[in-house]
Amino acid sequence: MTDAIYWFDLAGVGVFALSGALAAARNKMDIVGFFVVALVAAIGGGTLRDLILGQTPVFWIHDPSYLYVCLGVAGFTFFWAHKVASRFKILVWADAFGLALFAIIGTQKAIDLNLNIPSALMMGVLTATAGGIIRDILCAEIPLILRREIYALAALAGSATFLAATHLELPSSTALILSLAATMIVRGPAIQFGWSLPTYNKNS
Amino acid sequence: MTDAIYWFDLAGVGVFALSGALAAARNKMDIVGFFVVALVAAIGGGTLRDLILGQTPVFWIHDPSYLYVCLGVAGFTFFWAHKVASRFKILVWADAFGLALFAIIGTQKAIDLNLNIPSALMMGVLTATAGGIIRDILCAEIPLILRREIYALAALAGSATFLAATHLELPSSTALILSLAATMIVRGPAIQFGWSLPTYNKNS
Amino acid sequence: MTDAIYWFDLAGVGVFALSGALAAARNKMDIVGFFVVALVAAIGGGTLRDLILGQTPVFWIHDPSYLYVCLGVAGFTFFWAHKVASRFKILVWADAFGLALFAIIGTQKAIDLNLNIPSALMMGVLTATAGGIIRDILCAEIPLILRREIYALAALAGSATFLAATHLELPSSTALILSLAATMIVRGPAIQFGWSLPTYNKNS
Repeated sequence: MTDAIYWFDLAGVGVFALSGALAAARNKMDIVGFFVVALVAAIGGGTLRDLILGQTPVFWIHDPSYLYVCLGVAGFTFFWAHKVASRFKILVWADAFGLALFAIIGTQKAIDLNLNIPSALMMGVLTATAGGIIRDILCAEIPLILRREIYALAALAGSATFLAATHLELPSSTALILSLAATMIVRGPAIQFGWSLPTYNKNS
Repeated sequence: MTDAIYWFDLAGVGVFALSGALAAARNKMDIVGFFVVALVAAIGGGTLRDLILGQTPVFWIHDPSYLYVCLGVAGFTFFWAHKVASRFKILVWADAFGLALFAIIGTQKAIDLNLNIPSALMMGVLTATAGGIIRDILCAEIPLILRREIYALAALAGSATFLAATHLELPSSTALILSLAATMIVRGPAIQFGWSLPTYNKNS
Repeated sequence: MTDAIYWFDLAGVGVFALSGALAAARNKMDIVGFFVVALVAAIGGGTLRDLILGQTPVFWIHDPSYLYVCLGVAGFTFFWAHKVASRFKILVWADAFGLALFAIIGTQKAIDLNLNIPSALMMGVLTATAGGIIRDILCAEIPLILRREIYALAALAGSATFLAATHLELPSSTALILSLAATMIVRGPAIQFGWSLPTYNKNS
């Protein structure tokens, strides 16, 4: 992984940790709850990916930076969540950026291991979305992405684009930019216009 | 694993994916939710088994057939769930068949690794039931099998029978048939007559 | 691990299994539910720790004593939960003792693997608390420790003390006693006086 991606990765961790800490605030948790939910949201997806692939110890064991970022974000949010609360649209966009980065990182790991295409896409989407799913389970909610958000599809778009760009041997910076753009093109309208996928709604 | 078991395994995956997709329908999820819940129900148990045993990458990483089956079942159910809805008793019987097969497959994996008897039984039951438990957690319900169904016991009966038959060195087709029968004998009356285990019901 | 710690470990497993079985009683589960929740509460934390560290097969696969203890406790509680119900303060103290032991055991595993300090503390706290979190998720509750209990902090105190004592090369019995004391000093007042951490409670 290049240096730039490492810093982007930590930024993605910070954004996802914030989403976890804000969920903790909505559920009136204590500081420990803030940290746990932030941690799970930020590193849960990558941890599950590493477990499934057998890449253990998982990625954050030998680099405590990930824990420090989560701890910092959780502590900050505990005292100032009312100032950063989720109504600020910038956060939703930052989250989309984290989603794109995590999808790319997960796909890259799959490419490094020569996985087949469906598994590589799964790893991209899993890395990007599993942390949010576990976050919602911890808060005893049905995970939002299962119900109404165009979210996992945006991760899939990024993952597929990155995979295609890599197979075409495009330069890695081009692959990165195209994949980020693909995720944003799918996720952006959902954020801006509140678009969602149709849900199952028939009487059975 | 023989060829026949491989096809049975895929059939079991299909049935369990259907149980997941129908749960998604009850919770009015979108198509992504259908796929995620179908996937978790169908391959969650085997994935957890492989993680606990250290058999990584887990079984579906190098054979995308499992993902394709889940994707197909989820898509089909999204559009026609009202036609296959859970009131059709055939589905419950198909689910019992999947339960039996997954218990056998989990036990076989444990035998291949020379595990002790309690751990082998655990692997059989875990493979057969953990996917359903995670499915219910994703839908924010207390897993049904913890409350009122004779379900895990049926998996245990199949697992124990398969283990005994293997120790007695019965031919593998005999072991298979006896184990299927054992699961069905325990699970069948629960389906047919609505039998369940007594639950804890004292004032504490 | 010394012999004494092994027996303490099994005692901790028993206490945590009891906490799971009592949760099953509150949710009026059947005997299978009692066993599943007891098992998850008692060995869930250590299992997750072993998975994350890549120490597979996980610890209970080759020593069925852990399963037997959980099975025994679950069966006993199913018939006599009303006699051991959670109002008996001795149970809460036993639970604190289990918390301390699991934190020490998790930290010891991290030390054996030469992990950095933050990861070692994480492994101590994770071993001690993750089982309880999964137990509460299975019961469809927001995990209690995320909301109001001084619980994870007590595990952290024990883990940090054990790590410090080990770095100072204190005799292992001294390290053990100091770490137990540290957990009890943090957890004790919470039990005795109902102390809890402040929760997030601002309008956002």
